[in-house]
Amino acid sequence: MSAGARTHPLDLHLDVDLRYRRGRSDQLVAALRRAIETGRLLPGTRLPSTRAVASDLGVARGTVVSAYHHLIAEGYLETARGSGTRVARSPNVAAREPGPGPGAGARSQWQYNLRPGMPDVTLFPRAAWVKSTRQVLNTVPAEALDYGDPRGRPELRWALADYLGRSRGVVAHPDRIVICHGFTQALGLIATVLAEQGVGTVSVEDPSYPHFREILRLAGLTPHAVPVDDEGLLPADLRGRAAVVTPIHQYPLGVTLTAQRRRALVSWAETADAVIVEDDYDGEFQYGRNRVGALQALAPHRVIYAGTTSKTLAPGLRLAWLVVPPDWVERITNAKRIADQHSAALTQMIVADLLATGAYDRHIRQCRDHYRMRRDELSGALAAHVPAARLVGESAGLHALIRWSPDGPEEREVLRAARSQSLALAGLGGYWGTPGPHPPGLVVGYATPPRHAYAGALDALIRVLGRCFAG
Amino acid sequence: MSAGARTHPLDLHLDVDLRYRRGRSDQLVAALRRAIETGRLLPGTRLPSTRAVASDLGVARGTVVSAYHHLIAEGYLETARGSGTRVARSPNVAAREPGPGPGAGARSQWQYNLRPGMPDVTLFPRAAWVKSTRQVLNTVPAEALDYGDPRGRPELRWALADYLGRSRGVVAHPDRIVICHGFTQALGLIATVLAEQGVGTVSVEDPSYPHFREILRLAGLTPHAVPVDDEGLLPADLRGRAAVVTPIHQYPLGVTLTAQRRRALVSWAETADAVIVEDDYDGEFQYGRNRVGALQALAPHRVIYAGTTSKTLAPGLRLAWLVVPPDWVERITNAKRIADQHSAALTQMIVADLLATGAYDRHIRQCRDHYRMRRDELSGALAAHVPAARLVGESAGLHALIRWSPDGPEEREVLRAARSQSLALAGLGGYWGTPGPHPPGLVVGYATPPRHAYAGALDALIRVLGRCFAG
Repeated sequence: MSAGARTHPLDLHLDVDLRYRRGRSDQLVAALRRAIETGRLLPGTRLPSTRAVASDLGVARGTVVSAYHHLIAEGYLETARGSGTRVARSPNVAAREPGPGPGAGARSQWQYNLRPGMPDVTLFPRAAWVKSTRQVLNTVPAEALDYGDPRGRPELRWALADYLGRSRGVVAHPDRIVICHGFTQALGLIATVLAEQGVGTVSVEDPSYPHFREILRLAGLTPHAVPVDDEGLLPADLRGRAAVVTPIHQYPLGVTLTAQRRRALVSWAETADAVIVEDDYDGEFQYGRNRVGALQALAPHRVIYAGTTSKTLAPGLRLAWLVVPPDWVERITNAKRIADQHSAALTQMIVADLLATGAYDRHIRQCRDHYRMRRDELSGALAAHVPAARLVGESAGLHALIRWSPDGPEEREVLRAARSQSLALAGLGGYWGTPGPHPPGLVVGYATPPRHAYAGALDALIRVLGRCFAG
Repeated sequence: MSAGARTHPLDLHLDVDLRYRRGRSDQLVAALRRAIETGRLLPGTRLPSTRAVASDLGVARGTVVSAYHHLIAEGYLETARGSGTRVARSPNVAAREPGPGPGAGARSQWQYNLRPGMPDVTLFPRAAWVKSTRQVLNTVPAEALDYGDPRGRPELRWALADYLGRSRGVVAHPDRIVICHGFTQALGLIATVLAEQGVGTVSVEDPSYPHFREILRLAGLTPHAVPVDDEGLLPADLRGRAAVVTPIHQYPLGVTLTAQRRRALVSWAETADAVIVEDDYDGEFQYGRNRVGALQALAPHRVIYAGTTSKTLAPGLRLAWLVVPPDWVERITNAKRIADQHSAALTQMIVADLLATGAYDRHIRQCRDHYRMRRDELSGALAAHVPAARLVGESAGLHALIRWSPDGPEEREVLRAARSQSLALAGLGGYWGTPGPHPPGLVVGYATPPRHAYAGALDALIRVLGRCFAG
């Protein structure tokens, strides 16, 4: 099938097949990654401007910008004001960001890992999982192994309706719950339906996870960047007929949307006839006394609530759920059926059993205590050793944001120092959807390392910051 | 989001939201199904012509034809030469076809079930599954629970490369294997890539499973019907730059593509620069002495080989695999990553363990002996009691085709008689992609009922046929 593929020499020597319209940015990411991994592009090499690459390849400039952003977030590229984009000057460029995406093996290439987006998978409740598997296979009727409802197993949907109601205040009926194969699929299905409805523009927080903007783009939607301040996203900047938001713990800034802004967001949705996608990715991990419930409860007819086991159990399970407004049930169910019929039955039954027996709640409580401790340690170490670097955002979730005055070190300088210490770390720079300049920051995933490795990783971070802020 | 939805009264009183372009046929199916299930459309009601409905709704006629075909296959509608399409005259119209698709509960609504497309899920190796789960969770490294390679776990891809080589003659390297969330997803990913490459027409065997034609259409492709005779599909009728085929056991006719036709198919692909999608859905179940290997071995650079555990273990696992040509690896990997990152890790590890320990092979041998016996019983009972109805096609797979002379009873008459005996049965009529008239036939899924219920189901079938052929 490749006979007709046009390959582009360019000075980057990238083989990019432009007959694909969808996924061009992904191809560019893959080709650049390969070129860096194989040493064809050496550390420090300055890349052509996005405008030049776009023109050479005959693609939109946004496609190239998006690819560069992605690779900056992954640590392959680095950027600095005025000096363009370069291949990261690090022996460890091959380590990928272990957020959603191919991160296999990434852990082992670094001595320390504080990249965000993952739980400590060594805490996975293996014994409870085996126990529930045995229980399910001893009792499940054969029909559960057959083709089933595209929305998923009723056992899990009933268990979730109860769990989400009591733990997150979500107004959920099992009929309106759709089990998906991870949040990536869930967002993809929503994007497909939105595109079918003729929705063009989707509001997205800025900064936010670049992969999600990519999913929207691939469905033919245009992400519109909505700035975020200390009170959350700015409602006055919302556009389009849909918005993807992280109200409890904005990703990556970590702020919580204030009550007033919540009301403004819902009121915008009513006026604009828009749907709000609430990504409650770490709603279970709030360490303060006043836990905030899901936004969805404010306007169940306007909000698609999304949750997942990727942060509570393990990303490898690929399990997420949507609670959708009544008029979305058939649309999403249909999209899910077309995508893959329904999610895997046994995994659903096992998670339903974990929920029913209380094992899921126990596991989350343990993780919560554990991650809270890690955050406190991070906060204490910063205050004691690098007071100029502040931990900002709510005490919640699996990551924290470190910010400092623009007079301090440049973000890329800190990332470079981290690489020299074999410390995997994400800069805030990879998350922006708009051109800078943006203030510097580090997104620290304190949940990522296994228990025994956290102290070492924290020491490495303090060492790196100490050096950068002293210099 | 529904404020702007146009609803169409029509005389069918269907609420169909036409702002969706994708999925219009699915919506029509759902709306008609609802209308029938709720009794708004009564048994025997004659539906407007597809042309009239298409014109009223402002959609393509093909969309309506496809919806009607789908509902005929599901048993909601029936059709007869000259008298148009009617709501099935049966008290059991709500029972859906338990092929890929929402079939939950379908089994319980019928006393006997011989619909095709499913294995006997009561044979699922529950003890072996629990054992492998324990083994995997005792030994798996934590990184396996993390985000991983979009192609799937290396353990499963290596195990499959070995298994597919020895059991099916597939030329497979783990690097070229992509694990998918069921064959529906696999075909959807292939269709997405084909559409991105600008492929318009895809050759599809006629008859074939209508759901697969639907998946192609939803990706923007146009299925082209290729007739099938006793030697398999007619290579001279192939069109476009891709073909989806079932060479080992054509679905639903059950014929095997002859060696000469295989060569002609591959030679067409070379000339047309086309890719062949080999759906080896029941390649493991060949009962004769000369088992036929996969077509893929003839032309690994032209054939995408697809296999699944849906027939060997259970559809509810949602596990399938593709072995793709080298130049397809990145395309499919990319599409999979965008769809849902990768398939669930634990399920993959468990199936890898079943393969490695030989439990998978043992299970298949048991099922094979078992299904072969059922087929022999069906064949014997037909010969003894209804000689005018012949079992045709290869001795293979989980279904058999019963055909008879057009002088015999009409297909819908037999289906009606079956319903009156509470016997779920599929007519050949629902599988055609071209307008008739087509010869009558029954697609009998002898693997569907649990072991203890097969004799009763077979008796019911013979009773029904005996009555129809005597009358």
